[in-house]
Amino acid sequence: MTRLTPLPEDKFSFGLWTVGWQARDPFGDATRAPLDPVEAVHQLADLGAYGVTFHDDDLIPFGADDADRAKRIAAFRTALDATGLKVPMATTNLFTHPVFKDGAFTSNDRGIRRFALRKVIRNINLAAELGAHTYVFWGGREGAETDAGKDARVALDRFKEALDILCGYVRDQGYDLRFALEPKPNEPRGDIFLPTIGHALGFIERLEHPDMVGLNPEVGHEQMAGLNMVHGVAQALWAGKLFHIDLNGQHGPKYDQDLVFGHGDLKSAFFLVDLLEHGGYDGPRHFDYKPLRSEDTDGVWESAAANMRTYLLLRDRARAFRADPEVHEAMAAAGCGELAVPTLAPGETYRDLAADTFDPDTAAERGYGYERLDQLALEHLMGAR
Amino acid sequence: MTRLTPLPEDKFSFGLWTVGWQARDPFGDATRAPLDPVEAVHQLADLGAYGVTFHDDDLIPFGADDADRAKRIAAFRTALDATGLKVPMATTNLFTHPVFKDGAFTSNDRGIRRFALRKVIRNINLAAELGAHTYVFWGGREGAETDAGKDARVALDRFKEALDILCGYVRDQGYDLRFALEPKPNEPRGDIFLPTIGHALGFIERLEHPDMVGLNPEVGHEQMAGLNMVHGVAQALWAGKLFHIDLNGQHGPKYDQDLVFGHGDLKSAFFLVDLLEHGGYDGPRHFDYKPLRSEDTDGVWESAAANMRTYLLLRDRARAFRADPEVHEAMAAAGCGELAVPTLAPGETYRDLAADTFDPDTAAERGYGYERLDQLALEHLMGAR
Amino acid sequence: MTRLTPLPEDKFSFGLWTVGWQARDPFGDATRAPLDPVEAVHQLADLGAYGVTFHDDDLIPFGADDADRAKRIAAFRTALDATGLKVPMATTNLFTHPVFKDGAFTSNDRGIRRFALRKVIRNINLAAELGAHTYVFWGGREGAETDAGKDARVALDRFKEALDILCGYVRDQGYDLRFALEPKPNEPRGDIFLPTIGHALGFIERLEHPDMVGLNPEVGHEQMAGLNMVHGVAQALWAGKLFHIDLNGQHGPKYDQDLVFGHGDLKSAFFLVDLLEHGGYDGPRHFDYKPLRSEDTDGVWESAAANMRTYLLLRDRARAFRADPEVHEAMAAAGCGELAVPTLAPGETYRDLAADTFDPDTAAERGYGYERLDQLALEHLMGAR
Amino acid sequence: MTRLTPLPEDKFSFGLWTVGWQARDPFGDATRAPLDPVEAVHQLADLGAYGVTFHDDDLIPFGADDADRAKRIAAFRTALDATGLKVPMATTNLFTHPVFKDGAFTSNDRGIRRFALRKVIRNINLAAELGAHTYVFWGGREGAETDAGKDARVALDRFKEALDILCGYVRDQGYDLRFALEPKPNEPRGDIFLPTIGHALGFIERLEHPDMVGLNPEVGHEQMAGLNMVHGVAQALWAGKLFHIDLNGQHGPKYDQDLVFGHGDLKSAFFLVDLLEHGGYDGPRHFDYKPLRSEDTDGVWESAAANMRTYLLLRDRARAFRADPEVHEAMAAAGCGELAVPTLAPGETYRDLAADTFDPDTAAERGYGYERLDQLALEHLMGAR
Repeated sequence: MTRLTPLPEDKFSFGLWTVGWQARDPFGDATRAPLDPVEAVHQLADLGAYGVTFHDDDLIPFGADDADRAKRIAAFRTALDATGLKVPMATTNLFTHPVFKDGAFTSNDRGIRRFALRKVIRNINLAAELGAHTYVFWGGREGAETDAGKDARVALDRFKEALDILCGYVRDQGYDLRFALEPKPNEPRGDIFLPTIGHALGFIERLEHPDMVGLNPEVGHEQMAGLNMVHGVAQALWAGKLFHIDLNGQHGPKYDQDLVFGHGDLKSAFFLVDLLEHGGYDGPRHFDYKPLRSEDTDGVWESAAANMRTYLLLRDRARAFRADPEVHEAMAAAGCGELAVPTLAPGETYRDLAADTFDPDTAAERGYGYERLDQLALEHLMGAR
Repeated sequence: MTRLTPLPEDKFSFGLWTVGWQARDPFGDATRAPLDPVEAVHQLADLGAYGVTFHDDDLIPFGADDADRAKRIAAFRTALDATGLKVPMATTNLFTHPVFKDGAFTSNDRGIRRFALRKVIRNINLAAELGAHTYVFWGGREGAETDAGKDARVALDRFKEALDILCGYVRDQGYDLRFALEPKPNEPRGDIFLPTIGHALGFIERLEHPDMVGLNPEVGHEQMAGLNMVHGVAQALWAGKLFHIDLNGQHGPKYDQDLVFGHGDLKSAFFLVDLLEHGGYDGPRHFDYKPLRSEDTDGVWESAAANMRTYLLLRDRARAFRADPEVHEAMAAAGCGELAVPTLAPGETYRDLAADTFDPDTAAERGYGYERLDQLALEHLMGAR
Repeated sequence: MTRLTPLPEDKFSFGLWTVGWQARDPFGDATRAPLDPVEAVHQLADLGAYGVTFHDDDLIPFGADDADRAKRIAAFRTALDATGLKVPMATTNLFTHPVFKDGAFTSNDRGIRRFALRKVIRNINLAAELGAHTYVFWGGREGAETDAGKDARVALDRFKEALDILCGYVRDQGYDLRFALEPKPNEPRGDIFLPTIGHALGFIERLEHPDMVGLNPEVGHEQMAGLNMVHGVAQALWAGKLFHIDLNGQHGPKYDQDLVFGHGDLKSAFFLVDLLEHGGYDGPRHFDYKPLRSEDTDGVWESAAANMRTYLLLRDRARAFRADPEVHEAMAAAGCGELAVPTLAPGETYRDLAADTFDPDTAAERGYGYERLDQLALEHLMGAR
Repeated sequence: MTRLTPLPEDKFSFGLWTVGWQARDPFGDATRAPLDPVEAVHQLADLGAYGVTFHDDDLIPFGADDADRAKRIAAFRTALDATGLKVPMATTNLFTHPVFKDGAFTSNDRGIRRFALRKVIRNINLAAELGAHTYVFWGGREGAETDAGKDARVALDRFKEALDILCGYVRDQGYDLRFALEPKPNEPRGDIFLPTIGHALGFIERLEHPDMVGLNPEVGHEQMAGLNMVHGVAQALWAGKLFHIDLNGQHGPKYDQDLVFGHGDLKSAFFLVDLLEHGGYDGPRHFDYKPLRSEDTDGVWESAAANMRTYLLLRDRARAFRADPEVHEAMAAAGCGELAVPTLAPGETYRDLAADTFDPDTAAERGYGYERLDQLALEHLMGAR
């Protein structure tokens, strides 16, 4: 029997900036009033969420004095304690203030790069205090609109320098905190550095402490490049680098929509849930979405609930898919298990290949039955089996 | 003075499959007769090319017997000797024959995976004999149309196994040969594994011999994902992984157009040539394009020449851009040099950051002058300065 | 209770070229043997289809002599009679033969344009004989890769001339036949004229007999341009121009995938079925898809059945959505009915607007509840309500 | 000799909202101070512009009282008189205020639809007073994120109703003013109604006064759908509907970049200028772009100048292309002139086609020489011939 009411054990989390988005967009003013973080915590807890996440500036306005800062943090802590909500992840706002218009870690202005490091360090301390184990880096302003003004190789040097410094800081402090890079191909910059899961995976290997750094892929960001999110997450898992995940919805290459999870490409959402549930990921299911600008406060909370409800529905359907004997049979026919068998048997080397007898024309006749498998998946997704 | 006539020192190379493309497409039959590889070698040499590259099946029809094979190789060698054309790179056709319809290294069928390895090994031997130093892997059939039938993690295991075996083979033989992976996001598969430069960079680090394996990025393939080719190549250079490059043209996310270099996004082509010429890459400038299906033989050779002529023009314009004092001044104003200065001075640590005085609002007032720089680049590209 | 077994009354039809696709693609040879049209007719009838459609060359090989032609037509007719399958639509292959490499109606070669007209006329006669009421024009080769060689305005003149001539022909013959244009943005040409539903709608109004000409939109073709198929079909219906429809699946801007209906963007497929079923369209539900290249004959027929089964499932879910009182309530709250009320009341003119009292800030507070509605739709689609 | 200094006779115009953009984006606050419209007029005039255009709210803040309004209009007029700048076009801001979050003419809220009409009428009066002959409608909020909440057919009814009312108003007032619709596929709405040039062309034909309504296509908007802007503009010209044009730059399907004209797809910009200059369009060359967010005031004016300079350069290059005898020869070889010859000779009917003798295989051998033509165009664009 499907449970559609979320429980903390489901590990659903939300950013303060999601339900709190005031719905200012490039062509329009805010349509909703600010949301007090304390109110957000209580509402999310009531809806069954497990955690809440934040950028420094979501909690403490940029430039607030120390007293104001302390007061806001205390109120947030009180709400966390009252509700039992966790803070599994935090991150830094390195994009809203005009000072970051040319980037933070990769700004051409060295003073700004130094300021960015201080801003991150300050919030890492808070994140650690609040018990976060993941610290996310979305470098939304690290990029360019023209290749004339920014050598991407030099920018990557600075990006690496920043992460090396920050890894060093976390190690020095002894924080139990890992970093997760969040790739995005573009918007707000014309082209953002580390545009996809792959680019971030490659970059990490050049850092001083690659073990401390992984990925926080976002559904919509990969889909903005027309890429298969499920394949991307699978590669991140394969590399041991899926540290966190941002779930939402998107309709292909266009502006970043941040729709409710499942409200974009539903079939891909089904396979993603299947992968997360059966692929060994046990971190938070973090929704990084924006309630539509047309919504009032009721619509905000409807949409928050919709994310979790859709996930639970998809989880149920994915379980049924995996349990269906007809699916097992179709997977066997397709050779899904055979793919897991190494191409060389134990003890074999390439020299042994020469002994094979093989007729390519005969082998080519095999049908893989993917149409059947895809339809079985679709019907499970639709609750029709 | 611009030289627009190509010389071997320019290191221009072409695949046999480019000028030899018979122009069969998903909706139409071939419009051109087959081109004898010997004829291709002579024509390319006459046009000023430096090298020619090939898939095994371009030179020797799939399934040819040994005598036929030997005869064709001999004729090809004779043409190479007569013209002085080099074979800097070779690759394997693991996509045309129906046997590869579900992949080669990642086919669910283990017998097919073994056959693919044999096919590659045989052609590696030929590549080494012909003096190639780069062996390319384009895994066009390594992918899927449904996430139900292929676990991408398991597929990556098999992909890694194949490359590990083949690296071992090359080491055992003592060949002076490096591998270069060619990413592509889709087509002919719905989603191809290792879809971008980034995914390939990340994957390489998980191989047994990462030093032997690099990248062969293709302009159009990155642009099919809406990604910035110049940024991608820069990241490959930054990682020490730009082993080879495929130059052509594409108009954004759509089918793989393989246009003449520069006939797609001209501005990006300009910045790419600038990066190749001033970024330390000294390998072949390899054109992987397809003469339009509307062309006869004359049009084929016109288009081949157009690739080289456009490259030379862009090289000339990029040199002028780099030499222009006004550009130097604009780059200085934009802080391009400042980006190369480490964020922490020698001896500094993050602790020293606390001593900075910094006013974000003041720092935010700085204008970077990227519009001016972009326009300067454009006018150099247009020969207007 | 959902009926998932197709019946002729469901009006499902298939092109001979769909189940008969031999799976030759730009990078690979055919993986399946040719399918006899007679066999296709019998199989489709057995699966519950209502109709079959064809290009001239699907039925009669290009260049066949009259005797062969007659024999093949006779055999086809016999199969139709035996099975009761209808031929609701036919079309012309103006793209496979190399002669059409620069277009048919818009080829720069006038002799080719005249040949194209003869080829169409011949098949219109056959279509009429076989009882078709719709004749489709997919101008896949009407386009260009460079704007230097083809003035699109002149090409539209020729396109119009061709359709005017052919409309005249149909009128002269007294055939009960309407024309339906099938837009596509690109592939096989770099850019195809009349790339979207909209462009075709605009073009039709400049023809001599606009009433005879409507649209045959294809799901994947609109989605290749990132456009909303449901909006496009709605505009065609609004203009009285939805003469026929091609159902299939696609994953956004990339090569033309021709997946099984629903195997691409499932949520959009749900809303499309909802529109077709409740929007007054009563023509065939025509599947223009390609069984995956990895499939053998069994997979072909599995995939054909999957199209119909998915449609029936979605139809059922759309009916439940429309019948759900909670949906009615949510639609009322969103003002869906209010949109149908003219902005000016009967008898009002713009002069009466001045009398309104209106506070924009108050009006801006209204929430539209689209998140709730979208989630209701999603849950109906998933069979979860 | 190329003149690169703009003159009023070049008919360059700019929106107040372009140079006046404060650079607030979805992830960041404004980086520039407001720009006084009077200052904008003087600066643009100094740079050589011909005209300035505006949304009502660019000139008069939303909700300003009558005295303030009158004062601002007077100041603007004075600046126009002092500089000689024209106001060739005006438009309405129906997107910034939260009241329009669900649309203006197609809002589900009827009171809002009526308010939108009043807002337009008020600004039409001002536009007419200031001498504008074109009034633009960009329906940026007319759209939806879910197909569940807005029936596109009903929305088109309301859109038509609004335009019919407004056409009636202009006729009643006797204004010499035509309407121009500006299509856009998405952003800020998930899908916008009338997403492309084509959809707008089709829609216009269903209006009460189609002669009064044409198009204002924008380069970047068509390219956001991956469509060929040159083809789109050509179809608009072909239909007699190119009333105005928005020039800027874009890098394919992603967020709306509004780059300087030519800073996106340069080759397409070249062909667009060629079409405008040689295709009979004599209206303003209107730049609808946004100076990069990284720029200060100097960068704003640099970028404004860059638009005009690039246009003039491209115009010069297009003229040289059209004048080059080698281009004439290549066009003749390609059959460009032959396309202008009707397919049926004067007096011929389809019956005469039967007399043709034609061998498709021979006709298929013709090469069209498009590669050569494209390269000629490229080299003219690059000033290399």
